[in-house]
Amino acid sequence: MATEPKAPKKLTSRRMELIRIGVATLTEKGFHNTSIDELALAAGVPKGSFAYYFGSKDTFTVEVIETYGQYFVKKLDRILTDQAVKPLERLAVFTEEAARGMEKYSFRRGCLVGSLAQELGALDDRIRSVLLETLQTWQGRIRTCLDEAKAAGDLMPEANTPELARLFWYTWEGAVLAAKLEKSRAPLDIVSESFQRQLASLAPNAG
Amino acid sequence: MATEPKAPKKLTSRRMELIRIGVATLTEKGFHNTSIDELALAAGVPKGSFAYYFGSKDTFTVEVIETYGQYFVKKLDRILTDQAVKPLERLAVFTEEAARGMEKYSFRRGCLVGSLAQELGALDDRIRSVLLETLQTWQGRIRTCLDEAKAAGDLMPEANTPELARLFWYTWEGAVLAAKLEKSRAPLDIVSESFQRQLASLAPNAG
Repeated sequence: MATEPKAPKKLTSRRMELIRIGVATLTEKGFHNTSIDELALAAGVPKGSFAYYFGSKDTFTVEVIETYGQYFVKKLDRILTDQAVKPLERLAVFTEEAARGMEKYSFRRGCLVGSLAQELGALDDRIRSVLLETLQTWQGRIRTCLDEAKAAGDLMPEANTPELARLFWYTWEGAVLAAKLEKSRAPLDIVSESFQRQLASLAPNAG
Repeated sequence: MATEPKAPKKLTSRRMELIRIGVATLTEKGFHNTSIDELALAAGVPKGSFAYYFGSKDTFTVEVIETYGQYFVKKLDRILTDQAVKPLERLAVFTEEAARGMEKYSFRRGCLVGSLAQELGALDDRIRSVLLETLQTWQGRIRTCLDEAKAAGDLMPEANTPELARLFWYTWEGAVLAAKLEKSRAPLDIVSESFQRQLASLAPNAG
């Protein structure tokens, strides 16, 4: 459009609005079922803006994943470094908050990373790398929390915290998928309780 | 096409070929990224055949899921009722065979049900129902195997086998997703070993 505004502030806010809408829409509808037209329409920007800001849908999607990943790391940091709560209980606080979040959207929205991993993980190597890095960053936060539990004497020194952190995310993504399918938080609760039981079995006084 | 053959046998084989190709293509590429044109081309049938046999892509996908579900139940039955192997070890035989299957396709193909649940679970209620029923049928097979383990004295009588069967599939679908993302069988091994440890903790002589 000839009237396309070029002021940096406006550009930035339009850009951010497209990303914000991209996070919500791609989480709910996936990549191939979302058109650039509908993203531009929902953001109230001319279609040309999309190409101007991002070039391609792939580049846009990479930025959407990175933005979602950063948002989620902040959430994890808020919960998992809360010194008022014991480290292992912080994990239960996280899963409870996540379950309420899914309930709020009637289980239509799961995890953007899990959804795009299923849809694009086998197809697009650039997007796969970004999804993998994002998941590994989240795993790192869980590991740090588990290491804190170990230092506090709540996990035995032999507990393999990097592997437990991987186990947590692998199984949690499966639970989120199943919650969408069952339209119920039961899968989230079953998987979360199972993980807590496994942590309890790794307490120094267990067994 | 005017030369569309009408002989029942030929119809059936074309129909089956479309379903067979649908299972492979939808597993690897997903629903929205697969066109009717490419399915017809891969099956070597005129595009009109697709509408003739299935009417819509949704109806076709329901049949593809059902076919995959039945194929998978046969595989589960073969492994999970093998009286030459102890019940709990049969589960490990299944996860090992599944891991080798994913390796064979370089981790590009995961589980059709998991993939479509992510992509369509929140969008299409008819497909969601079929996916859920399929997963529940599989859960039933795992439960039967766990009940057999209980009867053999390998699981304590209090073990909640319906919930364990759900836990198995929730976490396994997450592992399959992660294996696609990491292009590695490590997630499958980590989740399978964790499940076996949980079963071991439910042995009558455990703890």
